[in-house]
Amino acid sequence: MTTNQNQMKIVLQMVSGYGGEFKTWRLPEAKADAYTDMDLYVEMAQLAEKGKLHALFMADTPALVNNIGVDTPMHSMDPLIAMTSVARATKHIGLVGTFSTTFNEPYNLARHLKTLDVISHGRVGWNTVTTSTGATADNFGTHIATRQERYGRAHEVIEAVQSLWGSWGENAYIHNKETGQFADLGQIKPVNYRGEYVKTSGPLPIPPSEQGQPVLFQAGPSGEGVELAGRFASGVYANPFTIEESREYRDILRDAAVRHGREADEINVFTGFMFTIADTKEEALARRRQVMAFDPEETSQRLRYLSAMVGLNLTSLDIDKPLPEGVRRMLQANWQDPRSPRAVELLQEGYSPLDTLAMGVINYHPVVVGTATDVADFLQEWFESGATDGFSIVPDLAHDGVKRFVEEVVPILQERGIFHKDYEGTTLRENLGLPYQYGLRK
Amino acid sequence: MTTNQNQMKIVLQMVSGYGGEFKTWRLPEAKADAYTDMDLYVEMAQLAEKGKLHALFMADTPALVNNIGVDTPMHSMDPLIAMTSVARATKHIGLVGTFSTTFNEPYNLARHLKTLDVISHGRVGWNTVTTSTGATADNFGTHIATRQERYGRAHEVIEAVQSLWGSWGENAYIHNKETGQFADLGQIKPVNYRGEYVKTSGPLPIPPSEQGQPVLFQAGPSGEGVELAGRFASGVYANPFTIEESREYRDILRDAAVRHGREADEINVFTGFMFTIADTKEEALARRRQVMAFDPEETSQRLRYLSAMVGLNLTSLDIDKPLPEGVRRMLQANWQDPRSPRAVELLQEGYSPLDTLAMGVINYHPVVVGTATDVADFLQEWFESGATDGFSIVPDLAHDGVKRFVEEVVPILQERGIFHKDYEGTTLRENLGLPYQYGLRK
Ligand SMILES: Cc1cc2nc3c(=O)[nH]c(=O)nc-3n(C[C@H](O)[C@H](O)[C@H](O)COP(=O)(O)O)c2cc1C
Ligand SMILES: Cc1cc2nc3c(=O)[nH]c(=O)nc-3n(C[C@H](O)[C@H](O)[C@H](O)COP(=O)(O)O)c2cc1C
Repeated sequence: MTTNQNQMKIVLQMVSGYGGEFKTWRLPEAKADAYTDMDLYVEMAQLAEKGKLHALFMADTPALVNNIGVDTPMHSMDPLIAMTSVARATKHIGLVGTFSTTFNEPYNLARHLKTLDVISHGRVGWNTVTTSTGATADNFGTHIATRQERYGRAHEVIEAVQSLWGSWGENAYIHNKETGQFADLGQIKPVNYRGEYVKTSGPLPIPPSEQGQPVLFQAGPSGEGVELAGRFASGVYANPFTIEESREYRDILRDAAVRHGREADEINVFTGFMFTIADTKEEALARRRQVMAFDPEETSQRLRYLSAMVGLNLTSLDIDKPLPEGVRRMLQANWQDPRSPRAVELLQEGYSPLDTLAMGVINYHPVVVGTATDVADFLQEWFESGATDGFSIVPDLAHDGVKRFVEEVVPILQERGIFHKDYEGTTLRENLGLPYQYGLRK
Repeated sequence: MTTNQNQMKIVLQMVSGYGGEFKTWRLPEAKADAYTDMDLYVEMAQLAEKGKLHALFMADTPALVNNIGVDTPMHSMDPLIAMTSVARATKHIGLVGTFSTTFNEPYNLARHLKTLDVISHGRVGWNTVTTSTGATADNFGTHIATRQERYGRAHEVIEAVQSLWGSWGENAYIHNKETGQFADLGQIKPVNYRGEYVKTSGPLPIPPSEQGQPVLFQAGPSGEGVELAGRFASGVYANPFTIEESREYRDILRDAAVRHGREADEINVFTGFMFTIADTKEEALARRRQVMAFDPEETSQRLRYLSAMVGLNLTSLDIDKPLPEGVRRMLQANWQDPRSPRAVELLQEGYSPLDTLAMGVINYHPVVVGTATDVADFLQEWFESGATDGFSIVPDLAHDGVKRFVEEVVPILQERGIFHKDYEGTTLRENLGLPYQYGLRK
């Protein structure tokens, strides 16, 4: 709990094991079967730990949600099993997994996550999401409920889970051979949680971990999402496209925490960002062009979308050349997509339409395409402008992206004093500078 | 699939990590915190693998079901996490976990178990139980349904899970960098399972493991349990007390398999048995007396129960001495408890009431107290009499019991030709001599 507020926090997303660009699996350096190769996943996590990254972060939706005919899957086969595998092969890095409050029973969730927290010696985080994907509801023979109902249940599930976590008293694990007392039953009590959506009696017979219990995360910026985060979350995974947007969202979240009687600093915003690192900016861009070339049809679609973003039909022009000066002046950012100003900027700087696409202007997160220094500069600018507490970094291809980030970007950040040189403690809470918590906060 | 029918199969139960006797944790050689020590659990599993044991078997009930004030817990903190931990640290041993068909959603179960099967390279088994413990229902805010309903749902959950397992075609995982086809969507289809109790659409986006999909086990001898086993199970965990009882039960199960259109040999019965091994029978018995002495009150209760088993109030006699000859002739086995004849036998042989108790006559399974040869003799007799296909072995204290079994009993069995000298293949199916299966059997 002696983290330096002038240092950013970083979690790594390897998505399904390949990384955040769903066609990089075709690159020569990619491992085409990374999806099913847990050894590789564990190796990359160990590398991330060498780089002192705070945690792995795993998004999840229990359904098939993208086109795996040509793209790599959006999620790992199973976050719980990946987290356990990594836990057994690492010592410091945190393990944050996404588990739906809608499609899990609180007792099962509480049990899985607390056990994992115990065996990882206090390194687990739970990203609480309500799941709004229809395909998931189909997998559970139901439909997606209203946002109000989903979040109503989410509050209850989290209350129930945290209550179960607290149901085994902090000092109840006696295991004293001489006296013969294994556990102090006076400290192990049912919770008898009776909500509108879920009920559970407990107790959950699992002792505390070194950090007490898992840390909560949240993702999703709706009003209900912010309230859930303000009440429970110590980390929020966010996807702003600009520093201003990010700063504003961070302030909203900090206010929400305070409204729920917590310190503003108890909530850490992790903004997502993606990267392609090479020795030069040109090489990085060439790599992204290579990946784009794998799917010309998708590129055409994206060009049409880019046209809409900049208010000009680009497909009638030479898309592999800088736009003529006269045309550049006609570009106008579409206010409906916050990524548009950046697209206009790049085209005006002389990037061709194809290169502009390759720069990642239509990605889910801001993208840095360049050298390790470019990446470090981006992170520093966002961090020092108060836009965020840290980052959820997404390499284009995990197989080499993790290595480049750890070996090239991390040393620069450490040199500049904006990233820790070692883990502050042994638990995720300590490394994120969070207060201890056990059971449901009163 | 070249297992030798003249060789027994053996799975190991470490229960919550301590073993099957809930007070052995107080012995000097015990590790008092085994419950939370995954390193120790993994080490013991590795030792079991050295002994070529076929699998670890983990019973489970998602509730606190015994008196952990003085006893070690009945179950591990979380079977899935223990199985994953072991999977990552072993290469051959199977991993059979108990997961309730009542308190899990089929999609979550299918996903967890198939993922674990993939990352363990085909070593997973699922012990299907319906869970009849009230405390569990309380943890899920419900009540225990009738047996008919529980088994009705069990059939559906297994159908749904196996259908989901088969929803990703066996050859759908293309991941060909050149063609850019990651998966063959023509082979990945929804299952649209619509039962009375559960519904799920799928598909489950997980490729087959080396054994296709996990092996099914069952436990519980009710008529409904036998039908479930006959239809789905390749392994049954049984608790007979005599060879005759076991043979009869095995025949019933084999008939049930045939009735469901399967080969009788596709169902393997694993009878549970417990042991205490020492260099001499006397030492083994002394160790059990030492454990009994930890709880004099429980011993008194057990003496009263033993009295009822043998039709004579033993508590008025000197319980630490052989019964007087005249008294021995008065003993009569209580037909309501199948363990009674053995109790009478031991008392008549001259074991004192306390020693008779220490011999384990009131245990959940038959108990062998003696040398490694005594244990081997017991296993051979049961196996060669056609009582069983194998055993689910439960050491009194796992910490040393696994070692003694592996180092002392296994070589004797191998010497006698009744236990394999090495794993037959790389998957649980191969090592159990089971046919390949993928998806729901038609
Ligand atoms: C950055 C970010 C990451 C998200 N990750 C996940 C995820 O892993 N799984 C999931 O089900 N939903 C995820 N969501 C979706 C949100 O939890 C939420 O459902 C979504 O934003 C819809 O909002 P609402 O449910 O508040 O209406 C994510 C959202 C954002 C903004
Ligand atoms: C040897 C054996 C092992 C069992 N293991 C478990 C277990 O691990 N978890 C569980 O919930 N039930 C277990 N059971 C209970 C059975 O699944 C079943 O619920 C019980 O025998 C009651 O029978 P019924 O449900 O068929 O009425 C076991 C039963 C036997 C005989």
